[in-house]
Amino acid sequence: MPEIVRVNMRNGQITRQDNKGYELLGGRALSARILLDEVDPTCEPLGAFNKLVVANGLFAGTPASSGSRTSIGAKSPLTNGIKEANVGGNFSWILGRLGIRAIVVEDLPQDDHSYVLIVSPDEIKLEVRDDLKYLGTYDTTNKLLEQYGNRASVLCIGPAGERMLKASSVAVSDPQGELKFAARGGLGAVMGSKGLKAIVAVGGKENKVEYHDRDAFVTAARKYTTALATSDKVKNVNQKVGTNGIFLAVNAMGALPTRNFSQGSFEYAENLSGETMYETIVKRGGEGRTGMTCMNGCAIKCSNIYPDENGKKICSTLQYENIALLGSNCGMTNLDDVARLNHICNDLGLDTIEMGATLGIAMEMGLAEFGDIEAAVKLFQEIYDNTPLGRVLGNGAHVTGEVLGCRRIPVAKGQAFAGYDPRALKGNGVTYAISPMGADHTAGNCFGARNEVDPLGTTQQGDLSRNTQIKITTLDCLGLCMFARPPLFAEPELLATMVNSLLGTELSVDDIWQIGYDTIKMEREFNLAAGISPAQDKLPEFLYTEKLEPTGSVFDLSEEEINKAIVE
Amino acid sequence: MPEIVRVNMRNGQITRQDNKGYELLGGRALSARILLDEVDPTCEPLGAFNKLVVANGLFAGTPASSGSRTSIGAKSPLTNGIKEANVGGNFSWILGRLGIRAIVVEDLPQDDHSYVLIVSPDEIKLEVRDDLKYLGTYDTTNKLLEQYGNRASVLCIGPAGERMLKASSVAVSDPQGELKFAARGGLGAVMGSKGLKAIVAVGGKENKVEYHDRDAFVTAARKYTTALATSDKVKNVNQKVGTNGIFLAVNAMGALPTRNFSQGSFEYAENLSGETMYETIVKRGGEGRTGMTCMNGCAIKCSNIYPDENGKKICSTLQYENIALLGSNCGMTNLDDVARLNHICNDLGLDTIEMGATLGIAMEMGLAEFGDIEAAVKLFQEIYDNTPLGRVLGNGAHVTGEVLGCRRIPVAKGQAFAGYDPRALKGNGVTYAISPMGADHTAGNCFGARNEVDPLGTTQQGDLSRNTQIKITTLDCLGLCMFARPPLFAEPELLATMVNSLLGTELSVDDIWQIGYDTIKMEREFNLAAGISPAQDKLPEFLYTEKLEPTGSVFDLSEEEINKAIVE
Repeated sequence: MPEIVRVNMRNGQITRQDNKGYELLGGRALSARILLDEVDPTCEPLGAFNKLVVANGLFAGTPASSGSRTSIGAKSPLTNGIKEANVGGNFSWILGRLGIRAIVVEDLPQDDHSYVLIVSPDEIKLEVRDDLKYLGTYDTTNKLLEQYGNRASVLCIGPAGERMLKASSVAVSDPQGELKFAARGGLGAVMGSKGLKAIVAVGGKENKVEYHDRDAFVTAARKYTTALATSDKVKNVNQKVGTNGIFLAVNAMGALPTRNFSQGSFEYAENLSGETMYETIVKRGGEGRTGMTCMNGCAIKCSNIYPDENGKKICSTLQYENIALLGSNCGMTNLDDVARLNHICNDLGLDTIEMGATLGIAMEMGLAEFGDIEAAVKLFQEIYDNTPLGRVLGNGAHVTGEVLGCRRIPVAKGQAFAGYDPRALKGNGVTYAISPMGADHTAGNCFGARNEVDPLGTTQQGDLSRNTQIKITTLDCLGLCMFARPPLFAEPELLATMVNSLLGTELSVDDIWQIGYDTIKMEREFNLAAGISPAQDKLPEFLYTEKLEPTGSVFDLSEEEINKAIVE
Repeated sequence: MPEIVRVNMRNGQITRQDNKGYELLGGRALSARILLDEVDPTCEPLGAFNKLVVANGLFAGTPASSGSRTSIGAKSPLTNGIKEANVGGNFSWILGRLGIRAIVVEDLPQDDHSYVLIVSPDEIKLEVRDDLKYLGTYDTTNKLLEQYGNRASVLCIGPAGERMLKASSVAVSDPQGELKFAARGGLGAVMGSKGLKAIVAVGGKENKVEYHDRDAFVTAARKYTTALATSDKVKNVNQKVGTNGIFLAVNAMGALPTRNFSQGSFEYAENLSGETMYETIVKRGGEGRTGMTCMNGCAIKCSNIYPDENGKKICSTLQYENIALLGSNCGMTNLDDVARLNHICNDLGLDTIEMGATLGIAMEMGLAEFGDIEAAVKLFQEIYDNTPLGRVLGNGAHVTGEVLGCRRIPVAKGQAFAGYDPRALKGNGVTYAISPMGADHTAGNCFGARNEVDPLGTTQQGDLSRNTQIKITTLDCLGLCMFARPPLFAEPELLATMVNSLLGTELSVDDIWQIGYDTIKMEREFNLAAGISPAQDKLPEFLYTEKLEPTGSVFDLSEEEINKAIVE
């Protein structure tokens, strides 16, 4: 039976228990359950009573492609509600094979040390590692991988998390030692509040994943993985241009965040497109790469290394959201600038989406010109230097907008919009408003459904958002990447077969989606108890009154339409 | 019939209507009713859909002592709920006699001008006065009084309000041309958001106050005023040491905010006491004065001018809350320093309570040493200079604590505690937690009842807070000062007689208190609709876990006890 490990930061005690009672719960569902059972929803997110749950999904450590994501959950300092952010990398592939389902970090330390938790086949132990204090995520990871070997995986925070800045992310290393980020919701600040700088997962020879029927699982997993690997989208889009394949499409529909969400398309969009990105990486060569995996055995391979003119790596990995928020939303006219900002965010351990929105606000309020890369880099230097201005920016879009007196703050429930303006992709506006996660594209992205539902229309948006939210949440609970969804949504029986053969259950396809449904219900219950009332299921006023060009659209859905997306 | 004047800042339109339907509503009750009827509770406080209500109480313009306070109401940018702050000064005495019950400021201007509203017997008009832009409250007031005469009264904001900083107050001039402040809740920022720099009330010869039975009113008002003027407390305390008469008593009970609420008593308390203040003012002479009125005909006379060693005015007026928050809470060891900070807050148009709490946090987080007056003045200079740090501080304790990463933030519903630590005066903790006003001593101060209810006890606090809240709210609706309460609470029939003889009603004493009750109910209804759920009726965690010396007390009331104070 998979274990749940508890680490108490006040007394250093580490306890291990099996996951009895939680057998069907993985990833986002498990952290929702633990938080709802054990954490006072009204607690202060950075205080002693919050808990950080690092969980993997039900498929962790199995050969199912893209199935070993790491889910981080806690009450969020950004939204003041429950939050889950999940991420690739190899951490949960190792943990799954070590027979560990989750690590729950509790209470606060009574000293000011930097702690690292080592999880290995031999032992689980907490070490004081003040040599890592305020190191960037890359230096932290490299130092720990040097020590524990390249096959280990590091989960860590950067200086932003240690300083409890609310835009802080959690980094996880991938098989190449590159970093992926559980970026949203400021969960890095929760980890930082607990004095925990990193967790190292060290693999062993033994594989503790238990299968009810291994052959049946492997057969189904292979079928799914093959369908994924051979699909047109994966072969021709994901493996070449990664998630940035949609850049020009979002621009064409007029939903591209541009200059602090004041325009829906960008005159330099071509420069930032997936096609340009791919060609540039191929042309420049050197350390540049496309089609990289971020988890062992992943068929999607959407990661990349973006090199400079000399072939030297600027950043890994460029993805759509980052390019939209740090790029067009800040008026940056080329990918070199975006890659530079992206790398800085990664190194500080900051959410690129939140920081792109934050920078957009700062630029609107005159702290820098839109498109001025050097001025933007200087603003990030303030965060490195931990100045008051740096702390404002590192606390994200809402705080920055409030402090600077900006009336156009693109957030919902305290969290910045992702790369889709709700006025031109209204289904995402519904998700931003209703999801317990705040403005979050991974919580229910309606972009893919634009052929079924008019993105500018005022009907069907609530149902679309709700259905997408539920299905994606199921993937979050199983540990699957949302980009694995095409074959799984097309043939959901595969999901049921994999779960049943793994656990010995007899779940139907409906039962599978019920996992997502139940999880969102738990999250909403937590948020209501935390004081996030339905009156907060609302988008900022400027979306209702300010027309977005080129469509001239405003966010004009009725409350009734929006509320159709509520899961209760 | 008294008029309600509406000013639309978008189109400059001014409309006048009688107060039909609102006859029984004054001050806080009237603004609650107008906001509940006309403002979407989920609106953005600094946006187009909020309204600023400048209302006077039912007794405005009458000879009832201390009965012409000005009430400012709006959705607060600090608490995100409904807010009312009331203030002395001569503004509402003039408005009452002009036959105006309220001015409702609506929408946003479409330009960047500074507007002044002139209200005179001849006309009501809006003027562009860019010469006043970013002037301090004193310069603004002096310039307008020079123009409109010393018998006019100016209601204005300082640069903080114009810059929409959330700790901004609204200033009102008194008969001496000194300023009083409707300080709490950031209502100055709402006024600033609307481009309104000032309102000038110019009196006329005619007195439009309508009495149902003038003689009966005057008889009752005289009886009340005499009782007030001849009471021991007014003669021996208020007129000498003002509200600061309680300083040593609060210190002795261990409830004095000291060094960011980390102690309940201050080793330099003697230096800051009312007695020291009085002796210093008398000894230094010059411009120094005690026993000053802030409204025509007020018997309490608790205002003062505090002079420097050469007799030159540093500040008017020093009051208990300001001395507690800017003094002991910032570790300031003498009144000269407090007066200096107080004057700066007044000039910027900032709430001294909010700023004292803010400075305490900044000091705890290392931006200045406790007690370092020059460092404190430098921090305020950042606000004058509108730097990012200045904007952080000017947005109050909650934002400052969040940005600086402080875990000890003394606020409830986003607003700073007043001068009573809830651990040693638990009734005030209940008021801070439950009142729709957020942490606000004027919303239900339980200090005066310390002989009836043990301030450290865990019972009777809910009922005490509730009853105090209701009665004080009634005074807020009538336009009366809370320091007029002793004779009114002792003989509430006087209140009923005054209201009935004024309006021709037949209200009983119970009906009089019902005014307060109904008002709080409206406010709570607004807040619930605004998304402030009962889960937010809570105090910060450090009060529950950190013992306050010298009593060693924590805030340990049960939820049940706290919730007894809810008016619903």
